[in-house]
Amino acid sequence: MTWNQRFAKSTGLMRRTAVRELLKLTSQPGIISFAGGLPSADLFPMDQVREATATVLDSVGAQSLQYAETEGVGALRDWLAQRFSRSIHQLSRQNILITSGAQQALDLIGRVFLDEGDPVLLENPTYLALLSAWRPLGTRFLPIRSDAQGMCVEEIEEYLGEKPKLAYLVPNFQNPQGTTLSLERRNRLVALLHERDLVVVEDNPYGDIRFENQPLPDLLELDLASNGGDSGQGRVIHVGTFSKILMPGLRVGWVVAPPAVIEKLVQAKQAADLHTNTLGQHLALELVRSGLLHHHLPMLRRAYRQRRDAMLAALRKHFPADSSWTSPEGGLFLMLTLPMDLNSRLLLPEAIENGVAFVPGEEFHLDGAGANTLRLNFSCPDPAQIDEGIARLARVALAPC
Amino acid sequence: MTWNQRFAKSTGLMRRTAVRELLKLTSQPGIISFAGGLPSADLFPMDQVREATATVLDSVGAQSLQYAETEGVGALRDWLAQRFSRSIHQLSRQNILITSGAQQALDLIGRVFLDEGDPVLLENPTYLALLSAWRPLGTRFLPIRSDAQGMCVEEIEEYLGEKPKLAYLVPNFQNPQGTTLSLERRNRLVALLHERDLVVVEDNPYGDIRFENQPLPDLLELDLASNGGDSGQGRVIHVGTFSKILMPGLRVGWVVAPPAVIEKLVQAKQAADLHTNTLGQHLALELVRSGLLHHHLPMLRRAYRQRRDAMLAALRKHFPADSSWTSPEGGLFLMLTLPMDLNSRLLLPEAIENGVAFVPGEEFHLDGAGANTLRLNFSCPDPAQIDEGIARLARVALAPC
Repeated sequence: MTWNQRFAKSTGLMRRTAVRELLKLTSQPGIISFAGGLPSADLFPMDQVREATATVLDSVGAQSLQYAETEGVGALRDWLAQRFSRSIHQLSRQNILITSGAQQALDLIGRVFLDEGDPVLLENPTYLALLSAWRPLGTRFLPIRSDAQGMCVEEIEEYLGEKPKLAYLVPNFQNPQGTTLSLERRNRLVALLHERDLVVVEDNPYGDIRFENQPLPDLLELDLASNGGDSGQGRVIHVGTFSKILMPGLRVGWVVAPPAVIEKLVQAKQAADLHTNTLGQHLALELVRSGLLHHHLPMLRRAYRQRRDAMLAALRKHFPADSSWTSPEGGLFLMLTLPMDLNSRLLLPEAIENGVAFVPGEEFHLDGAGANTLRLNFSCPDPAQIDEGIARLARVALAPC
Repeated sequence: MTWNQRFAKSTGLMRRTAVRELLKLTSQPGIISFAGGLPSADLFPMDQVREATATVLDSVGAQSLQYAETEGVGALRDWLAQRFSRSIHQLSRQNILITSGAQQALDLIGRVFLDEGDPVLLENPTYLALLSAWRPLGTRFLPIRSDAQGMCVEEIEEYLGEKPKLAYLVPNFQNPQGTTLSLERRNRLVALLHERDLVVVEDNPYGDIRFENQPLPDLLELDLASNGGDSGQGRVIHVGTFSKILMPGLRVGWVVAPPAVIEKLVQAKQAADLHTNTLGQHLALELVRSGLLHHHLPMLRRAYRQRRDAMLAALRKHFPADSSWTSPEGGLFLMLTLPMDLNSRLLLPEAIENGVAFVPGEEFHLDGAGANTLRLNFSCPDPAQIDEGIARLARVALAPC
């Protein structure tokens, strides 16, 4: 029997890792890459990490390297519970699970909630690795259009007859579009959760990277406010991570949810990896307790805002009026839409040859749409590289065939 | 709808986390616990960890905290490939996947190979968290008796008609029994793999913690030797970890397997948690490269051997001839068998009341057997505590009803 014959049927459902291969390719020198999704390593607070590591090894000692509770380090769960508490609702560590990055949170949620064939409402386009996590479960994805105001919540109604098990969305500075769910739609969605007995997974890796205007309330917060702050009755499973606000290599993310959900996720996590790496949890805790975020977050916002501005300026300069793009108020990505007759996947090899890379927007779409769109990451290249990269991209995209 | 109604059917298959609850209970002061499975934190090489951390943060810098390849840090994969190479077979990084602890390796292997209802051969008793990982997949476990020489390989034949998808075993100092698969049975098992087109998962967390006698060759090694060193044709999926030889809180484990298997596991891992925490991988690499294991492993072996000896001596002293126990040549556990009419689960509450804890052996059995057995961990308490704990246990177990 060959290995392929031995693999489980469900693994056949796994998406080809074309994007992963692309990312390796585009890390070659000479290529200006808008294909990544990484926070910028040159902005990591290395001095504070050195200090925090020494502090943890001295004060927590060997326990910072020992097996730990599946739920996560208690003090870190407390800190997160506090961070997500509001005057109207108090959360406790029973509402918090620490995961090995937000990706694991999504994986565990799928394993705990989704049986073969279960329908799930998704923004279209959506986060690629959510598809990788839930597709092998045999999930049936119900695509909901997403525009400049985020998921078109009013279009959910038409799918309600299918009894969706979950809805999934990235409300702030969505990956891949960079768009944000409007306050009106947030309120409408939360009302719908209660009217129609729905559960939503709110994936919020980028919310703290806001460049302008006031933050909008999380769905978690609106939901709890709507039921008098009873976290046991919440219908929002909120997912977050230190990856974008500290460092992704820690692999420390979290879930905020009703205790009954946390308890079930803990069982799944115990089977998946016992617990999240202990040193990374203590390191994150030490960094946030030291007050680092008070100056680190504003610095990150300034730096990424400058890069977004550079990209928007370069797009205005190099692309003609028949192309359009989103203007994100935060995050790491924007989406460029070329004229309908252009196919970004076909452009990619030539783009790479000309020293610029992106991810074809079609990858993120559930229905083969988006062939003329490109996801552009602006958090890694510096402003001068961004201008040059967009110029190269324009030359390739706009060249006469 | 209640939360329980929303959870997927498969999660109903998850084992109750009674042991986890037990471990929390028994970490109370005053209790001598033989219930854990932890390496001893007082043996962690903390000075070297401090030094290695500083070195990594200086030499690898921000990349030690950035997103990393799903496969794992290349240099660490190379080091492991070298470690598992022999003169007859050379492995490369294509044979290695870094996982978030060995537990994740087992989880990923299940997800990649096992469809609902697939039969799997298991030693009985077996490692508890393997059951947690594979039971939700709907796996059908075929129990193979395990005695003082490890899995009774000759009894596999009777199940071959069921076409088992995998076999799973812990060949060295097994959890829970502490027993080791004999060389004769290793050879027989590897012959069977080829004769009957079987695949075995060799889980080896304890192999390096050997107290006496020469190490036996891994199934991986015997298998590769039997096919001329062609790693692409191997039938052994080997799982290991730094948890017992360095520190478990790093959550760094590995799989050694044919490249076709590694490739599929990489896809599953990408969906599960993107990659293993970067700092932990670099820290492990720095520690092993510095030569730490040359003196750290002998020290660990001496320390655990002393504790095993203390437990064996205490058992001889406090338990009469109608009880028996295994005499492990390494690892962290031994198994105590009481007279048939005693039930260790029923003894446990009284034992805890009397200041000693263990895990009832029945937990590890697939068929309700082992009611009169106890898994005793000897790696955490010191020799004096071990004597006192075994004395307490004997008083509880041997008290007239």
